Amino acid sequence: MSAFDGQHEHDWTDHDAHSHDADADQVEEQKAFFRCLAAFTHYKIHSLATLARRRRHYAALPSPHKLLLRNAGFEQKLDHAEQAVLQNFEFIKYIVAEESPFPYDEDAKKELSDSGSQESSESDMDRVRSTIRQVVRDWSAEGRAERDATYTPIMEALDRAYAYLPPSERHTVRVLVPGAGLGRLCYEIAKRGYSSQGNEFSFYMLLTSNFLLNRIQRPRQHVIHPWVHSFSHAPTAADTLAAVHVPDEVPGNLPAGVDFSMVAGDFIDIYGGVKERGQWDCVVTCFFLDTARNVCQYMDVIHSCLVPGGVWINLGPLLYHFEGSEEEPTVELSLEEVQSVASQFGFVFEESRMLDATYAHNPRSIMAYVYRCGFWVARKPGEEENVAE
Amino acid sequence: MSAFDGQHEHDWTDHDAHSHDADADQVEEQKAFFRCLAAFTHYKIHSLATLARRRRHYAALPSPHKLLLRNAGFEQKLDHAEQAVLQNFEFIKYIVAEESPFPYDEDAKKELSDSGSQESSESDMDRVRSTIRQVVRDWSAEGRAERDATYTPIMEALDRAYAYLPPSERHTVRVLVPGAGLGRLCYEIAKRGYSSQGNEFSFYMLLTSNFLLNRIQRPRQHVIHPWVHSFSHAPTAADTLAAVHVPDEVPGNLPAGVDFSMVAGDFIDIYGGVKERGQWDCVVTCFFLDTARNVCQYMDVIHSCLVPGGVWINLGPLLYHFEGSEEEPTVELSLEEVQSVASQFGFVFEESRMLDATYAHNPRSIMAYVYRCGFWVARKPGEEENVAE
Repeated sequence: MSAFDGQHEHDWTDHDAHSHDADADQVEEQKAFFRCLAAFTHYKIHSLATLARRRRHYAALPSPHKLLLRNAGFEQKLDHAEQAVLQNFEFIKYIVAEESPFPYDEDAKKELSDSGSQESSESDMDRVRSTIRQVVRDWSAEGRAERDATYTPIMEALDRAYAYLPPSERHTVRVLVPGAGLGRLCYEIAKRGYSSQGNEFSFYMLLTSNFLLNRIQRPRQHVIHPWVHSFSHAPTAADTLAAVHVPDEVPGNLPAGVDFSMVAGDFIDIYGGVKERGQWDCVVTCFFLDTARNVCQYMDVIHSCLVPGGVWINLGPLLYHFEGSEEEPTVELSLEEVQSVASQFGFVFEESRMLDATYAHNPRSIMAYVYRCGFWVARKPGEEENVAE
Repeated sequence: MSAFDGQHEHDWTDHDAHSHDADADQVEEQKAFFRCLAAFTHYKIHSLATLARRRRHYAALPSPHKLLLRNAGFEQKLDHAEQAVLQNFEFIKYIVAEESPFPYDEDAKKELSDSGSQESSESDMDRVRSTIRQVVRDWSAEGRAERDATYTPIMEALDRAYAYLPPSERHTVRVLVPGAGLGRLCYEIAKRGYSSQGNEFSFYMLLTSNFLLNRIQRPRQHVIHPWVHSFSHAPTAADTLAAVHVPDEVPGNLPAGVDFSMVAGDFIDIYGGVKERGQWDCVVTCFFLDTARNVCQYMDVIHSCLVPGGVWINLGPLLYHFEGSEEEPTVELSLEEVQSVASQFGFVFEESRMLDATYAHNPRSIMAYVYRCGFWVARKPGEEENVAE
């Protein structure tokens, strides 16, 4: 693996291998990795097939309606959408062309390939498309308003919590960012002088952040068309087809002493163990808590891995990703219940308010999901306060 | 069928029976009707099963986490959610207890029942749950803000278009409201003195609007718990469990001369025919256009059923319901393309702007879908302007 800016090696170590059922876990993980690679690779054929269907549907319209649509420029929209998809695929090729940062077994890959398990489902393709939109959120000028609404209050809270340190000493503060996505938040935290580690589970995110953090030569080097996959909610065809240049910034030049890394794997497996106990000064969760099946367990791990007196900064909605899932247990708590559980763990809330934010929102769309996010700064009691433990 | 306020008979006539393939259509429609009845009937067992699963998942948590949740009141939330579901079912029983306004064949019903086709899918249950939320939108005090944001601009545009008439003569204006849902908009139009006809295709909407328009004795007669089906996005458990009293108003007392009716069936089949050509002074489409597979066809029918010089008022997003559907053709147009097609049909835009609105939004939720709706008033040219036809 190549270094980040000549000094910062990303740590892709598979911590999962240390878990109780290491072999089975590893097989599952390799499968997930190959499925992800396959989905990226199938993007072109899938997306062109969708456009071919749009063309067939257009062709099947009554002739007078077809004429109306032709006059409105609908055929051109289809032609340009095809070009947009091909350009997206040029970007995707960079993501998957990288030498894989994840060690894998060639035999296992061949076996999976032979068994046809590399076919991509619609939900796999959804992940590819949402990864492209997430690139806009984290690494484009168009995503700036969204980042300002979410990352800025987090960083201001961080600065308040460590206001007693001169900026040159911030690197002694170790900040953990679970659910790091494409890495912009933990990179910004590092730029601000704190040592920061991102943790991410999704291979879609990991492959893409690896590319964006390590392989970019210049700002706006790549062009993507993130909104071309849906024709709904568009003021004009130009909005559907719009190009976004990425990234807005080439990662690098971190302040002296800052340790910046990305770690692949499951948050609970990695940071819930004895080795990580009391290792982190601050945990930042941004649009992360509701990815839990059991949010108590997330809070348990956050509490455990923090030093006494450590700070937990949270910002996010409560769109529980697993609500309605049948098999493995999943529980969904209200904001008040989440905060009650946090208090029971011993966290003391120093700030708590609501903040409006969007997530990977298309600013050209005539539809928006707006989240009123719970935002808080909570502190794990220091040792002297923890006499009962 | 009973009368509305002693004078206004609802016309549930099955216009579809006149279409080319009348018998097959009628069988399909009866199936859809029984599926809808079955879904309402299965609401209780389905919803209790969902809560039983939530209980099992809770019970499967590690004991320390269960204790945290118990202290946070989670068990009480589950108990109260059960009561809320039972209370919703009391309301549903009123909807389906009505003597059916749709004629059906007892043999066909028995055959369908024997074949097990009355089992309800998750998407059938979704329709029941979204019908309950739609009752809040159309018939509760809690839905008022949403109605003010959408129905009020429409009615103001209507009043501007017919400002030359004294209010006592408004009943001579015939207003058609396709996609009438639970009937509040077309009822408000009638209350304002215009003759109005709602058209609706969904049996979920039709059965529920029939109950709300015809069988209510007093305001706030019924209690529903519309937000109990999802535990996500809730500030507190009380928000998830909240009761809403419905309706806010008992329909009745329309101005003299006003003709108010609801017609069941497909908009294109009913209003696209020769009989309806030039029969309507005004068509009001509210959150309707994007329910089309082919929005050109909707505009074709709107244009055809309007009198020369007639008015089309539209307000809605472009969340195309059939985007991505494989079989039957479906096309998705941008706002600009929709307006280009409308102009090609000859419509002249007299007003056009964007308006923010929500749809069946839970005001207690910490998440909102916000639609920037296209709002316009367009006129079909009068006969003297139509020399080319």
